[in-house]
Amino acid sequence: MDAFLAVVSRREVRDYAPAPVPDDAARRILEAGRLAGSSRNRQARRFIAIRDRALLDGLADAVYTPSNLRGAALAVAVLTAGKGPAGFDAGRAAQNMMLAAWNEGIGSCPNGIADPERCAAVLVPRDGEQVATVVTFGYPARPWDPERRSPEEAIARADRLPFDAVVEWR
Amino acid sequence: MDAFLAVVSRREVRDYAPAPVPDDAARRILEAGRLAGSSRNRQARRFIAIRDRALLDGLADAVYTPSNLRGAALAVAVLTAGKGPAGFDAGRAAQNMMLAAWNEGIGSCPNGIADPERCAAVLVPRDGEQVATVVTFGYPARPWDPERRSPEEAIARADRLPFDAVVEWR
Repeated sequence: MDAFLAVVSRREVRDYAPAPVPDDAARRILEAGRLAGSSRNRQARRFIAIRDRALLDGLADAVYTPSNLRGAALAVAVLTAGKGPAGFDAGRAAQNMMLAAWNEGIGSCPNGIADPERCAAVLVPRDGEQVATVVTFGYPARPWDPERRSPEEAIARADRLPFDAVVEWR
Repeated sequence: MDAFLAVVSRREVRDYAPAPVPDDAARRILEAGRLAGSSRNRQARRFIAIRDRALLDGLADAVYTPSNLRGAALAVAVLTAGKGPAGFDAGRAAQNMMLAAWNEGIGSCPNGIADPERCAAVLVPRDGEQVATVVTFGYPARPWDPERRSPEEAIARADRLPFDAVVEWR
């Protein structure tokens, strides 16, 4: 898929089909996260990729929308550590992963951590690590083919504030 | 460009050719930022797009690497406001913009704010707004064609920690 179409057609997908995410697709998703730029190339982050059903279900009650985890075929926890703009860099890595997934028709959604203690009990982060997000992945329950839309159509349909409300030219 | 190739071939570009970023490309870059997902779709962000040479130069001393601003044809300041994971969401929007740019051969780099007071004096943010980053854009001074590389080659050449050092499977 063209990169611009992927960027403007991607939406959060929270309802997943039961189909697993193939190994090679999971690998590409994680490579996309690994290759994301970071402040001073510190790469102060780590990814825990979860496909075990019991672990996905165990993590579900730690996030704001447990059903996302319960239905996901794959989840990737992004853990950050150390100084620097951890949230910003985690967002870059997560976006890369979600676009790589969407490029092959796999939906995704970032999940905020509602219960950090429960999250830590399941993921067991290393000393100093924070869980920035848990991104859920899976084929959409209601599949659609973004290739059938133009970028213009994807932009027009987006539930977003108007261009002139968020962009100021100088 | 294929979205996966864009994701894995994109690198920070800090040396820019003097050529301007065309209006339609700048618009696509900003649409990519506007359409990025955000926590609860709050879109608690705003973009200031700067092409004025004096303003770009004036902002240069506010960031860690002033030469990035001095050489850039376009800069987009990402301003966040309110509650929620502002840094994470700003990272998602910035990554979207940088990938939309790279898709048409335009390089980019996020710039951290070294001097928030100087930055505020130039950008004049609204009450409650923070400048998360200033992303610089421009055609690379040393152009190369990512289409001539495969994703596998781009991945192999990346200056990143090894896959097994950053990914844990569960």
